[in-house]
Parts: sequence; structure tokens; C-alpha cells
Amino acid sequence: MIIILRPSASQADADQILQRISDCGLKPLCLPGTERVVLGALGDERKLGALHLESHPAVERVDAVLAPYKAVSREMHSASSVVTIGDFPVGSDRFFIVGGPCAVEGLDPLRLSAKVVKSSGAHALRGGAFKPRTSPYSFQGMGIEGLKVLRQVSDELSLPCITEVVEVADVEAVESYADAFQVGARNMQNFRLLTALGKATKPVILKRGMAASVEDLLMAAEYIVSEGNQNVILCERGIRTFEKGTRNTLDLSAVCQLKKLSHLPVLVDPSHGTGVREYVTPMACAAIACGADGVLVETHHCPQEAFSDGAQSLLPAQFEAMVNQLKAFADAAGRVI
Amino acid sequence: MIIILRPSASQADADQILQRISDCGLKPLCLPGTERVVLGALGDERKLGALHLESHPAVERVDAVLAPYKAVSREMHSASSVVTIGDFPVGSDRFFIVGGPCAVEGLDPLRLSAKVVKSSGAHALRGGAFKPRTSPYSFQGMGIEGLKVLRQVSDELSLPCITEVVEVADVEAVESYADAFQVGARNMQNFRLLTALGKATKPVILKRGMAASVEDLLMAAEYIVSEGNQNVILCERGIRTFEKGTRNTLDLSAVCQLKKLSHLPVLVDPSHGTGVREYVTPMACAAIACGADGVLVETHHCPQEAFSDGAQSLLPAQFEAMVNQLKAFADAAGRVI
Amino acid sequence: MIIILRPSASQADADQILQRISDCGLKPLCLPGTERVVLGALGDERKLGALHLESHPAVERVDAVLAPYKAVSREMHSASSVVTIGDFPVGSDRFFIVGGPCAVEGLDPLRLSAKVVKSSGAHALRGGAFKPRTSPYSFQGMGIEGLKVLRQVSDELSLPCITEVVEVADVEAVESYADAFQVGARNMQNFRLLTALGKATKPVILKRGMAASVEDLLMAAEYIVSEGNQNVILCERGIRTFEKGTRNTLDLSAVCQLKKLSHLPVLVDPSHGTGVREYVTPMACAAIACGADGVLVETHHCPQEAFSDGAQSLLPAQFEAMVNQLKAFADAAGRVI
Amino acid sequence: MIIILRPSASQADADQILQRISDCGLKPLCLPGTERVVLGALGDERKLGALHLESHPAVERVDAVLAPYKAVSREMHSASSVVTIGDFPVGSDRFFIVGGPCAVEGLDPLRLSAKVVKSSGAHALRGGAFKPRTSPYSFQGMGIEGLKVLRQVSDELSLPCITEVVEVADVEAVESYADAFQVGARNMQNFRLLTALGKATKPVILKRGMAASVEDLLMAAEYIVSEGNQNVILCERGIRTFEKGTRNTLDLSAVCQLKKLSHLPVLVDPSHGTGVREYVTPMACAAIACGADGVLVETHHCPQEAFSDGAQSLLPAQFEAMVNQLKAFADAAGRVI
Repeated sequence: MIIILRPSASQADADQILQRISDCGLKPLCLPGTERVVLGALGDERKLGALHLESHPAVERVDAVLAPYKAVSREMHSASSVVTIGDFPVGSDRFFIVGGPCAVEGLDPLRLSAKVVKSSGAHALRGGAFKPRTSPYSFQGMGIEGLKVLRQVSDELSLPCITEVVEVADVEAVESYADAFQVGARNMQNFRLLTALGKATKPVILKRGMAASVEDLLMAAEYIVSEGNQNVILCERGIRTFEKGTRNTLDLSAVCQLKKLSHLPVLVDPSHGTGVREYVTPMACAAIACGADGVLVETHHCPQEAFSDGAQSLLPAQFEAMVNQLKAFADAAGRVI
Repeated sequence: MIIILRPSASQADADQILQRISDCGLKPLCLPGTERVVLGALGDERKLGALHLESHPAVERVDAVLAPYKAVSREMHSASSVVTIGDFPVGSDRFFIVGGPCAVEGLDPLRLSAKVVKSSGAHALRGGAFKPRTSPYSFQGMGIEGLKVLRQVSDELSLPCITEVVEVADVEAVESYADAFQVGARNMQNFRLLTALGKATKPVILKRGMAASVEDLLMAAEYIVSEGNQNVILCERGIRTFEKGTRNTLDLSAVCQLKKLSHLPVLVDPSHGTGVREYVTPMACAAIACGADGVLVETHHCPQEAFSDGAQSLLPAQFEAMVNQLKAFADAAGRVI
Repeated sequence: MIIILRPSASQADADQILQRISDCGLKPLCLPGTERVVLGALGDERKLGALHLESHPAVERVDAVLAPYKAVSREMHSASSVVTIGDFPVGSDRFFIVGGPCAVEGLDPLRLSAKVVKSSGAHALRGGAFKPRTSPYSFQGMGIEGLKVLRQVSDELSLPCITEVVEVADVEAVESYADAFQVGARNMQNFRLLTALGKATKPVILKRGMAASVEDLLMAAEYIVSEGNQNVILCERGIRTFEKGTRNTLDLSAVCQLKKLSHLPVLVDPSHGTGVREYVTPMACAAIACGADGVLVETHHCPQEAFSDGAQSLLPAQFEAMVNQLKAFADAAGRVI
Repeated sequence: MIIILRPSASQADADQILQRISDCGLKPLCLPGTERVVLGALGDERKLGALHLESHPAVERVDAVLAPYKAVSREMHSASSVVTIGDFPVGSDRFFIVGGPCAVEGLDPLRLSAKVVKSSGAHALRGGAFKPRTSPYSFQGMGIEGLKVLRQVSDELSLPCITEVVEVADVEAVESYADAFQVGARNMQNFRLLTALGKATKPVILKRGMAASVEDLLMAAEYIVSEGNQNVILCERGIRTFEKGTRNTLDLSAVCQLKKLSHLPVLVDPSHGTGVREYVTPMACAAIACGADGVLVETHHCPQEAFSDGAQSLLPAQFEAMVNQLKAFADAAGRVI
């Protein structure tokens, strides 16, 4: 339910209504806007009827949210949300470019890759310390040690850093080192992890699962937001189809869908989306052109030596060229880089 | 097989070799280039061994084509091909915009839609006279009468026209009225139709089937080109996946694949690719950004009255706005509109 | 629309009503049943309202058919249809086993394979004379010559024969030689071909397209039946998915869907459905267990020499073993072999 | 690597070699067979070369395992494994039938459903206490309380019980109450959970993810087995495709693939696989016919009141009829029920 307050409503009115929502067992949500305050009530909507909020003097209107997802829907929050990572406003008119290796492989290698990211003009550093790998015999990441390395390089270069979290027990550690969480495609419906992240405060980049519909992705985001963490960023990274010429099929129309249905920022990962180095830059350009708020791109100072995903990692010169191409498209896309 | 002639080779040398290729039961192909002539031999490559062409004095080198498609591959023809529709060079630095209704519904309606296409600055008119419809009870198109209407409007407005052909028996009629054939997704592997079009001379826009891999599409194009019609243009129009928020999943990375693997021009159809009017323009912008040579877009002067596909047809003002947005992206994409 | 006549209605009543349906531009359909006659009217249902058939004294009830397919739906024809090929009643309690090579490769090879089919106790012979092949450089079939060979072997062994038709222009020739048409997956939505087959009289085995939903398949069947040929048999042969361990993903639940939604018989092709020889027999057994009316199975007297599809063709001894396994399952499935 | 010992090798030989494998950092695996002992060494195979085991007097042969999965492959363990749940030998010639509601909803409801399972002749009880639900607003399961209820009913009726585990932190609790773990499709690649289950001792039923290939499923199983828990049972439960007439597409050919590639038992879940009550029994029959070792089927004493998945739950009489139909097929399938 959306409870739209009158322009004349006071903060005390809002607080009182939020309390009543909470008292009847629903989750209250406060969405302050520039013109008026909008409140949300998440959960079994039948309970709300008993409150008769539509007759409260501070309430202008009570609307049902038709979509199965509520807090993340544009119905509830018509203005686009901006989520801040480091000091970068993701979802604003600034286009967000994140670069870095698939995995943190050590201090020196990460520093080399991160310098490329920084000097190219990108805005944040990515790198996995906990790696979900298809095979138990593949490199599984450096763990906590990797988080420390990531923090150190991030600080040295003043680049906020993003890293994957794969397990409830790691949420606290990851939050203490990184500037934003990433939830990978394989964990998009790990609901316990989502719930735990809903109780954290740092931003969460939530990647679409390989078999997840756009609606499934929004429902997964709802798990996080409904627990209280509104700093969620969605990420299209390709779905599984019959086509074998690319690792996945990057579904850019999902960007259009997500921007229409939700107020959350939307990123695109053309590296996992295609799995082929030479398709990454054109698909990053397509992403800015169709309305994405940023891209997550793998780059490695020496891809042939990468512990994982070398074939899709841009070479340093390619990463720099990609940033320049994105700059060329930014103006037409109404974006600043 | 690719037979690369020496710079010094004469036309007589080329003719003699083509004759020998033909004599041993293979299809000869002549691909004149700016620097040297390249010949192709299509068919059972073992037969070619007996000719010992590598020792012919006019021959510099004989290479195998590794891909299963030959004549359409970049291995055989490294420069991008330009295919002319009307007088528009598709595949050049000019970005090709085709607009028009799903179906030809009569002279007046088509004229109204075509005027929008023309005045917006688009380059060609589309409209189906033979409509392959899922249901036998749906409108099946105006047939020959529709072709005549299309030709008339096309001439009135000096817009070349493109229309679908669905059956071998119609190839001659369609060729006499239209400036280019379109083969729809459902007929992409109608090999008899492809073979018949290979004997025609007008350009063929070949749409990817809903379950066709990029390789399947190139093999289908090979059917046409190997019969002698080199004027083939490929078109990505969405594939079938589990995602239900769009009619199909537009696979823009197929554009990257096709441009890498083949020398043929590549268009994108964001109308069928998404099936949702408001996603068409952003996906058209994504298409120009990722390297497509043009777009095919449905527009109707009054979509709510369209006999078919109204939900994905742009309104006149939207079509005009889309052309303007494409113009804004053209420069960054290295294109002229 | 379904027009259910009273038990007392005469043939003259039925004829008169059929005439009126026809006169208003709809296709009339007569479905004689054991208890009462049911008439159908296919086309724009609004036209039927003007006839006020519900008040005709011979009419008991007029019902709308809710499904988009009409003549093929169980709503219109609640009893299962039996379609006769040669003298085999497909769709009855007898389970129909068709065997034979992918392609007719000559008189002697076909005879060898056909003898295995016959001696194993299977009921019909398959073999393609017109082969739709992904590559223009692959064997395209023997054409009319192949049809003659098929007919000859069919007659020698008293096995009815089934062969693919790929083009309107061949319908007459195929009908003159074969006992049933097969429409392949790639032509399932070749609507002109379907319409032409609707005017033929021999049975049509219609295979599901690789990206076709069950509803699409029923709509394609409707094209044939609505033209007058009610002898249609549906065939599940696998759909395209991300799974690479099999050539296609055989969707046996489609058998359940088709049997529920339609009265037409349903076959399964486990050869194309899996593409792997050792999976063919278990999937044929699964087919009889889940309610299919028969199987189409590729067998070749010497698969390693087959011109096409050798990897999925059963060896003679395997084919014989499969028939025996099917016999073991028949009783539990309520079938006779 | 597989190290095949000579028939004359002693237990001391085996122990010594296992120690050496372990000493060089690989995971040792002992697979005692009826004729000779086979040892496995999991991990970086290059390390094994340094041991020169092929020249050890007790060793007959050292073979590489070509598949990316090792411990679960038939290459390493050619005989089919039997995994015991309660006292039922899953993977033997006895066909395993598990029934029960989607979720544990309380003591009385579970008891009612369980009695149907028992009296029908099925072998184990299923029911979820921790429910992974697409929406945060749906019933999430009774948690630990549900585990207690499940244990109580299981004991009352002497039916072993199986329940889902969704989080590392719950592994111990679930193991203390249930007879077997189930890992759901959404957690198939929750590698931390798999690793934790690899350290448990009770059997694990691992369901295929909605976008997981057969190879992905085997790699996920490898995570569990390589940690030491060899009691893994695989389960096909449908994959995501474009087909909308069923909830998922049940891929029965995956049963054939899994039985060929792996020695682990394979179950089928036709309830989630189809999502439609009336398709469950025919697909269960298809499962036994194509070689599955058992089925997991949802049944509820009153589906219209079920908290979840009511539409796919069999009514009590339907469950009983399904068991009877499976019995009719068992003999032909070489199974005992």
C-alpha cells in the first residue's frame, strides 16, 4: 500500500501513521519526496484495511500497489532513486563505470589493474575475494586476505571498491572492508543472504540470475529493501539461452523493463553477459544508449595470466578505449562521465 | 576454399580458374577487391585438391575456410559488403532506417504512415502484403493487391520499399513490385524459398529465426549467396527465451557476432525484438551504439486501429523522435544518418 | 463455435445448418459422434450471432470455443481422434511404431533398413526424399527418385510409408507416392505449406518447431484442419534450450498438454529429441508411459555410413530391442503393440 | 586420477597410498569394489605425477578422469551407487517414491498427508520447514518448529523424512531432525552450502537448478562428494524454457545423461517439473520408464488449502492411483516397488 500524505502533513503525522502501520504487523516505509511525503506499508494488505488510513486527516490517498513487488516498484516511488557508492551517485545523470579483475589475486596484480581503472577515468574498482566457481577444483578466491588487499588498493587510489558476498556469515566482514556488496547471479535467490543484506547499510549490487525473469529480480530486490536497506542497485548480466556464440545472452531490453517498473538504478555487466573480450565495448556502448546507469567491466593488467575469466577481461588499452567510447556516447544519452 | 590471386593476375587468369572450378562441380565465386582478386570455390573441398591451384602461376595462395558457412564469412571476404536498396548503400557508414506498418492495410492508411516515415528522415518503407500469422483466423495480408499499393506509395514518396515473401511461387511477383525481399523469422530455414531467392537479383533481408543460432542464420544466408545472389542483409529480431516481459529477447550481441564472422550488413528489428512500444526507441539507440548498420521499425499512423502488431508500433511523433535520437548517437557511432 | 445438435436432429437439419454457416462466410465443420452430431463454425465468430442458431429447433446448444485454436481443440471434439495411416489406426489403443533411416539413400540401403523395421514388428517406414539441411553443402535428398524408391520398398514389405514434404509445389507428388506427409520442425509455421496440406487428403504428421510453444503447434494444426484435412497427427521432437548434452530437449510434458487440449493423436520422435543413440530407447519407453500414441525412430542398417543423422540412428539390433521394450511397457500403458 | 590396485593389494597398501595422496595436498578417495580396490585423488592432477604411483608394486594402473567432475563420474566409479535413506536403498532395483506436502504447515495437516503417503505404499515423507519463496511476503516456512513436527510424524508412521536446507547455519539442525537433506534448485550453486553438506553425513538430494546444465549439476555434486559426503542423490525437476503451458520443462533425457555420466542415483520431481496436477502421474510413469531411481511427488490432504504449490499437489486418491500406476510399470522397468 502507498499512503500519500497531504502537502500540509507534518512529520508528527507521518510518524504517527508509521507507528500504526508497524503496530498492526506490517513493515512501514518512509519515502520523503520533494513535494509531499509518501509512506509505504509492506506485508499482508488486508491488515491495513482495519486502520482506515484513508480517513486520517493527514492522508490524501491510499493506493494499492498492483505489482507483486512493492517497495522497489515505481508505483510506490515514482522518482528514480540514487544510491551512493563511495561518493558516486549511482542512478543520477552521471554514468557509473566500474572496472577491475574477476578475482583479487594479490596486492601487486590488483594494484596494476586498479591503476588502469583509475587512469582511464572510471569510478570504482571491482574484484572478488570470495569466488563462486562451478568446479570445486578451481581457484576459490583469497577470502578475508583478499578483502584486505582490495581495501588497501582502494584507499591508495581513492577508488571505492565493490566485492561479492556469498554467505550470510561473511556479510559483516565484507561490509567492514568494501564500499558495496555484490550478489552474484548464482545467489540471486539465496533469500537468507538477501535478508541479511537487508539488515546491512552499505549498497548492494544485485545481479540477475541466469534463469531469472525481470520480475524474479525485482522480487529478490524486494527481499533486501523490505528489510530496511534501500540502497539496492540492479544489474543485468546475461541469461541462459540456446545461443552458444556468447557465454550468456545479454538482455538489454531488461534495462528498459527495469527502468520502467522500478525506481532502482540499473547497471549492465557486458563481460559476463558476452564472455568474449571483443564484444564487451560495443555492448557497453549499447548499455549507455538504452538507458543503463552504468557498467561493470572486467579488466586485467595481463588477462592471459588471470586466475579466472581471462577470455572476457579487457586489456588495459582496451579498457581505456572503452571509457573514451562511452564518453563519446554520453552526451546523446543525456549522461555525464 | 579461397583462392587469392597475385596482384599481377589478369581477368583472363581469373576466368580460366573459375572455369576449372566450375568444371569439377564446385560453385565458383568471384570477389573482386581493391588490391587483388579473390576467388571462391563452394562445395566439396576435396574435389578442389585435384586442381592443384596452388601451383597455378596467377595464384598467390589457396586457403581453406574453417567456418561451415563459406561465401558469407569474413574469412572469404574480409571487407564489409555494401548492399544497395533503392539507392541506399546498406552496410556503408550511412545508418539505414526503415519504417512502416506491420501490414499493408490499404492505400490511404499506408500513405499516412509512409508520410511519417519520409518526413522523419527515414530511408525506406516496410509493409507486409503476405503475412505469416500464427492463427489461420487472423488477417493474412492483402496479397498481390497489397504489393501494388506498396509500390504506388513507394513511388509517390520516393522511398524504396521492402516486403516479406513467404513462398517460392510468389518470388517473381514480389520482385516485380518491391525493392527488397524480406524473409521472416518463421521462414529462415525454408530452404526452398532461400534457394529461389538465391536466383533472384534484388536484395534479401534475412531475419533470424526464433530458435536459430547465429551460425544457423549464417548457414541460411549461405543458401542464398551460394546460389548467386550476394545481396543479403542479416537481421536480428529477437529470440525465444523464458523472459515474459518482452515478446522476444533481442540479442544485440548477435550484431557483434555477425559483424565479426560475416561481411554482410546487419540490421536490428527492435519492434518484434521487444513487442513493447516504449522499449523500441531505446533498443534502436542500443543497436546503433553496438555496431548495427540500420534498424527496421514498425510505425502506424494510428496503432490502436492496426490490423496486427499495434502494441509495438510507434506513434508518428514517437517515430520522428526516434530518428532524432538516432541522429544524436550517429556521430559517436561513426555513422551518418 | 460448437453447435451441438439434439439427438433427434436429422441429417437434413445438419446439412441445412452447415449451409447457413457456409453462406455467412464461415468454414463449416461436421463432427459426427456416437451419441449426437456436433457441428463447428470456424472464422469470425461475430458473424455467427446473426444466424441465431441457438433458437433453431434441431440445435441443443451453441458454445464458444475459448481456445484460440478451434477445430483441433478438445472443446470442440471431446473424443480422441483416430487417424489411419495405411491401415493402422493412429490414436487408438494400438501404439504406433515408425522406423527407418533419416534419408532415402537408394533402393538397396532402404530395403535393408526397412526389413529390420518390418521384422521387429514396427508398423510403418519413414525416410526423407526431400531433406531440409542446415548447410547448402550437405546431402539434400534424392527428391522424386527417392519417393519412388520409398514406394517400392513400402509395397514390397507391406509397410505404409511416411515422408517429409517441404514445399507447396511438391505436395501433389508426395501425396501420390507416400501414405502420409511429414512436416518438419523448420516448416511448422510455413503457413502456405500447411494450407496446401489442408487441401490434400492423406494424413499429415506435424512436428513441433524448435521454438514453438504447444499453443503454436495447435495453431499450426488448425491451419491444416480448418482447410478440410482432419487427418492430422502431432509430433513432439524436442525444443531448443541451453542444455548441450542432448541435441534438443525432448519435452514429454508436451504430450500431456496436447492430449488434454486437443483430440488429435500425438507421436514422439526420441531420435531428433535427443540426438544420442543410447538415449533413444529409454525416451521411447517414457513416451509410451506418459500417454503418447506412438514413436518415430531413426534406424539405419549401418549408421556409420548414413548420409545424415548417423549418431542418433539405432543399430538394427537396438531397434529390435526397443520394440521389445515397448511391448513390455504396453500393457501398463493400456496399449497393444 | 583413478588409481586401480592389483587384486593382490592389501589394505595396508591402500592406506599407504592414500596417505601419500593426502601428503601432497590432494583429496584421497577410497572406492572399495567387489573385485579390486580403486583409489581416487582429487585436485590438481599435476601434483600426482611426482608420486610416480604407476610404478608402485600394488598399483595396476593410473588413469586420468577426462570429465571435469571426478568423484561423481562413472569413469571413477563404474558401478551404480546406492544411497540409503532411512533403510531404503536408493539406486538399487527398488524404485523410491517420496510424497508429502510442499511445506510443513502444522502437526495435524502433516499427519493427514503423511498417512496418505504411508497407506499408498510410498517410502518416504517430504515437507519443507525452510521455504525459499520468490516473494518476501509469502509464507516462509515454520523453521525449527517445522523440523520437529516433521520428525514426530516421521517417527509415528515409520517413514523416513526429507527436508530442504537453505543456509549453512541450519545444516546441523536439519541433520539432527531429518533423514536426508534436500538442496533446492535455487541453491544448487550455493557452493558454501554444498561444502558444508560435504562435511555432514546424512544423504543429500541435490536438485538441478533452473538454468543448470547436466554438467553444472554434476559439478555441484562434486562439491559435496569431494568434501567427503558420498551420499548424494541427483534430482531432475525441470528447467526454464520458453514453453508457458507448464511451470518448467521437465527434462527426462537428463535422467539418461546422468545415469550414463555418473554413478549417483537419480530422482525426478514431476510436481515442480510440470506445475500442473494432472501431468504429474504420467510424467512419474515416464520417469520410471526412462530409468530414474525414484520420484519426489507433492501431495496434500487438501490442496486448495495448501500454503504453497496447491495447484501441483496430488489429491490423496490421485497419489494412491499414481503409486498403483507406477507398480504397473515397475516390472517392465526392471524395478520393484
